Amino acid sequence: MSGVSQIRIRPALSGDVAAIVAMLADDALGRGRERIEDPLPSSYFNAFEAVERDRNIRLVVAEDGEGAVVGCLQLCILPGLSSQGASRGLIEDVRVASHCRSRGIGEQLVQWAVGESRAKGCKVVELLTHHTRVDAQRFYERLGFARSHVGMTVRF
Amino acid sequence: MSGVSQIRIRPALSGDVAAIVAMLADDALGRGRERIEDPLPSSYFNAFEAVERDRNIRLVVAEDGEGAVVGCLQLCILPGLSSQGASRGLIEDVRVASHCRSRGIGEQLVQWAVGESRAKGCKVVELLTHHTRVDAQRFYERLGFARSHVGMTVRF
Repeated sequence: MSGVSQIRIRPALSGDVAAIVAMLADDALGRGRERIEDPLPSSYFNAFEAVERDRNIRLVVAEDGEGAVVGCLQLCILPGLSSQGASRGLIEDVRVASHCRSRGIGEQLVQWAVGESRAKGCKVVELLTHHTRVDAQRFYERLGFARSHVGMTVRF
Repeated sequence: MSGVSQIRIRPALSGDVAAIVAMLADDALGRGRERIEDPLPSSYFNAFEAVERDRNIRLVVAEDGEGAVVGCLQLCILPGLSSQGASRGLIEDVRVASHCRSRGIGEQLVQWAVGESRAKGCKVVELLTHHTRVDAQRFYERLGFARSHVGMTVRF
């Protein structure tokens, strides 16, 4: 593939929270859910600390050659009894900065998460993608994911 | 509703692992994935310990009036930055013993998980259900869940 960005995937730091939230908000569904203010609402930083405390959760960012944050992904490794006690990987909050799309950054993030899940002994990696995100579904199918489940949600 | 079973929902103990695995295996999809042996493969007990160690995961069982385990559910409360740093509830491995179905046990388990998620500040509760489990999808819709997402998986 031409035009693939060279990125570095590293654990997110508290200094990355603003860049991550900006990417979460720069999205048709995220726009109405986030609050971009200066300073950011403290709830984001509290959540970041909760993520950091949880050894089964890894929030990572993709950094470009200049050190700018251009993508993010959260991976949860969830122990459970089913499938002979194998853990499950759950991928959440995958975003790529809008000016950096179609350069393989999302693919590298997801491949990282799948590899990490495998290394941790998971037998399955799962994710939910909104039914309107048809492009995302094609993207994940290209990476080996099947549309095997219905994702159901209740919001408060 | 007539015929609703009175159950008690309590944290699963290591002594419940065999009953839980029996329910996981007594299922069209679970049958090929589990190993019912005596003694059970140690991987199940290792997984149980990993679940117990994770403060964000709660594996519960439903106990009937005689103290028999007749259902189970795993709830993960997952911190994350999206939705202004609100946690998400993830419901997994919901099972009801086959001889106890249609008595409201699954409903009580799921309502417990939704209430617990709400109490922990979650703004959304989510779950994946296999696309062939049409009855399950109807069941969750009745409890207020929407078929909002596509659940995608990759298995190793």
